[in-house]
Amino acid sequence: MQKLKAIERVEDSFLKLPSVGKKSAERMSFALLNMSEEEVSEFANSLMSLKSQIHRCPICGMISDNENCPICSDPTRDTSVILVVSSPKDVFSLEKSEGYKGLYHVLNGEICLSKGQDVESLNIDSLLTRIEQGNIKEVILATNPTIDGETTALYISKLLQNKNLIVTRLAYGLQMGGNLDYTDQLTLLKALEGRRKI
Amino acid sequence: MQKLKAIERVEDSFLKLPSVGKKSAERMSFALLNMSEEEVSEFANSLMSLKSQIHRCPICGMISDNENCPICSDPTRDTSVILVVSSPKDVFSLEKSEGYKGLYHVLNGEICLSKGQDVESLNIDSLLTRIEQGNIKEVILATNPTIDGETTALYISKLLQNKNLIVTRLAYGLQMGGNLDYTDQLTLLKALEGRRKI
Repeated sequence: MQKLKAIERVEDSFLKLPSVGKKSAERMSFALLNMSEEEVSEFANSLMSLKSQIHRCPICGMISDNENCPICSDPTRDTSVILVVSSPKDVFSLEKSEGYKGLYHVLNGEICLSKGQDVESLNIDSLLTRIEQGNIKEVILATNPTIDGETTALYISKLLQNKNLIVTRLAYGLQMGGNLDYTDQLTLLKALEGRRKI
Repeated sequence: MQKLKAIERVEDSFLKLPSVGKKSAERMSFALLNMSEEEVSEFANSLMSLKSQIHRCPICGMISDNENCPICSDPTRDTSVILVVSSPKDVFSLEKSEGYKGLYHVLNGEICLSKGQDVESLNIDSLLTRIEQGNIKEVILATNPTIDGETTALYISKLLQNKNLIVTRLAYGLQMGGNLDYTDQLTLLKALEGRRKI
């Protein structure tokens, strides 16, 4: 007995999502069968409107449902600093911490040759244009503290050499509320290196 | 900065799926943003057609995309045995093992009072009707070997008492290809109890 075509089609869609394997895709598809007609069509409609309602800000690459992204069009932000992140999610996280009042630039990815993400696929050209056109004094590189993120930060910092800019990277160190015991060796080393007078 | 409405709507839909938490729902929604228009609308369309193309067999409760479920309408199956499972997924698994040639009955759930699944919500009445109308000789209870599955099997076996039927339960024991070391105590006890002459 073959699995039903309609179920396989949904499973194939779920399989394209991150960290969804064959077994989870199956479980999710069967769960949909037990949902009401309304719930499933709400699901489908939410997917349809995602693409139609959300677009990228032409300046910084952040996602937005308005003409202009709320940060680029906010006159109270400090326009002399650009913080570079790899994903729109990171902007939401940083905004939640309420400690940063400058602008952002979303690369939409990190250099990862094994996944076929090279420099061309990233939103880097528009960053260089912004720096040339604007009155930018500092660029903060806030890509992830992973191999891909470090590679990307290094690559961009090289591009920004000799541009009369301060280029910084977020600090590495202990996690607030964390435990020294559970902190990995590399982070401990970085925390030591970056120690500050109190 | 508030998260965008369109993203939250998709996250809420993902959250209704099994073993999807807030963080995974977020990751999945952002992954959709990076997919092409075609991929996302294929996803939405697959969800829509799932509900419209698939219905339950009026006899056994199995899902099907034909008028009649392929098993109930197969004249070569042994109509004297009904194997009772809790979910359509189980029918696919059992059919894959190719060892069973009788009929099925899908309860569509198991008794689980903590989740509000009581006897009323299960497809039990039609099982009793089938047994009264048909020439059934054996009912095999193949609900899961969990507390809920055991409760359900026990409940149905009580209902089938004095009906001149053989009521059986699938054997408990070692998993094929498994390791005695890694087998839990309860399963080992059951495997000992159910030992057979070779």
